[in-house]
Amino acid sequence: MTPQRICIIGVGLLGGSVGLAAKSRLAGCEVVGWGHRRSTLVRARAIGAIDRIAPAPQQAVAGASLVVLCTPVGVFETVLREMSPHLAPGTIVTDVGSTKRSVVELAGRLLPAGVHFVGSHPVAGSEKRGIDFARTDLFENALCITTPDGRTDARALRTVERFWRTLGMRVCRLSPVEHDMLLADISHLPHAVAAALVAMQSEEGMKLAGKGFLDATRIAGGDGRLWRDILLDNRDNVLAAIGRLKASLAELEQLLDPARGDELAAWLDRAAQRRAQALRRKLREVSPD
Amino acid sequence: MTPQRICIIGVGLLGGSVGLAAKSRLAGCEVVGWGHRRSTLVRARAIGAIDRIAPAPQQAVAGASLVVLCTPVGVFETVLREMSPHLAPGTIVTDVGSTKRSVVELAGRLLPAGVHFVGSHPVAGSEKRGIDFARTDLFENALCITTPDGRTDARALRTVERFWRTLGMRVCRLSPVEHDMLLADISHLPHAVAAALVAMQSEEGMKLAGKGFLDATRIAGGDGRLWRDILLDNRDNVLAAIGRLKASLAELEQLLDPARGDELAAWLDRAAQRRAQALRRKLREVSPD
Repeated sequence: MTPQRICIIGVGLLGGSVGLAAKSRLAGCEVVGWGHRRSTLVRARAIGAIDRIAPAPQQAVAGASLVVLCTPVGVFETVLREMSPHLAPGTIVTDVGSTKRSVVELAGRLLPAGVHFVGSHPVAGSEKRGIDFARTDLFENALCITTPDGRTDARALRTVERFWRTLGMRVCRLSPVEHDMLLADISHLPHAVAAALVAMQSEEGMKLAGKGFLDATRIAGGDGRLWRDILLDNRDNVLAAIGRLKASLAELEQLLDPARGDELAAWLDRAAQRRAQALRRKLREVSPD
Repeated sequence: MTPQRICIIGVGLLGGSVGLAAKSRLAGCEVVGWGHRRSTLVRARAIGAIDRIAPAPQQAVAGASLVVLCTPVGVFETVLREMSPHLAPGTIVTDVGSTKRSVVELAGRLLPAGVHFVGSHPVAGSEKRGIDFARTDLFENALCITTPDGRTDARALRTVERFWRTLGMRVCRLSPVEHDMLLADISHLPHAVAAALVAMQSEEGMKLAGKGFLDATRIAGGDGRLWRDILLDNRDNVLAAIGRLKASLAELEQLLDPARGDELAAWLDRAAQRRAQALRRKLREVSPD
């Protein structure tokens, strides 16, 4: 089933890009937008990310076969409560949040029977925020992780996965628990560490920042409240990841010994090789030929 | 004084780029290259980074008014010992190393009286290595730190600074001690942390690496032996920087508390703002208008 009407809740960078991509890839599909800030909705309509602005959640979800939650993780509960009474049986709800255990649990608790929730995490975006950075191709060749659990409707899962594929994404499945554990390591911790690397610099040191430092800390450029919500939502895994990074730094401290120079070089080379492998995999996925 | 003959010792990414930039910016200047690998020298000559290959250090430095050491930090001592007997009084020697205390000390100890050493650190480069990545514009608008101390000849310092400016760089001065301390924080530690972030990932996690992670760890893509030498050479400062990063992570662990959400958001925003400020400063320097 291809959605004939999509409702996007929250039309910032991600929501706006979902709208632009859906409009460009799904012929005849109507996109309805709703959000808390009128000016954002007007801008989203002006750039063609949505066809229509709904005055309230009730009108937003009316007749929509697919509802995509694109607000920050921290307001999912409020939004799900607002939408819930107005969702017709058979509606499929998904999201684009960076954490998955909490939203899957919330949806299971707050959505009415007959409404199917499928957790999604399109691993795309940037440190930029807002509708002005929305792009038709934001999701192209990027990975989308869906997070079904024992309660997920199989047909709804297939519909949501087809939707992301139509937007140009590769799709893989993880349980909500696995997702949050792995993403703490590969995304949430690196974000927090980038912020910590900036926090520890002196003013004098910051003046010497070169391209290397600026690239390494680019992900720290994101919005503080948005990332606070992600880090707090995934607190247990992030704390465990910090623990493992500390162990990795302790290993490095031991290797910073002239007598262990070969081991240190091998440790650094191994990291370079693992990163190069991940980069090659990503490039292969982008251009499969 | 504009150098009429420049000798480049080590024609990889940095040495090759010094040659290309000097040939393009210094009319009538001859560039002589020397290094351990014949094939690299031949390639450097083929792309126009050097005019002539010297068969040995003696011929390399003969008649050169400026000698630029572009080998890895770890072989500076060997190279200085090889060159030393052949340097004529008045010759100016500089380098492009990422650490400065040790090379300034070595030069003071190993170079003959009347030969002037000026430590330089052009903060430019990439995780790539080798002559094939050399570029005429590698140094343009980047920062070069010179590291005079009480023994540095004032005229030689001015000549070296003018040389880097001619290659398109901005120049600032730090003592060798200040340089190594600040660079540990802004460059050497971020490199080590990027490697540690890769080292702690599971294979499964690496498969989910997105653009954010790959950018954050790009600097970990460098050569292991090269970075081993830098990290060991600046060991005391790097260990101190690791200590401060750990303190910064401990602060974050305390802030990962739902009751302290506002503080956490403010901590993240402060990091984002400081990085944005450094980025703006850098962009302003690149395009001053």
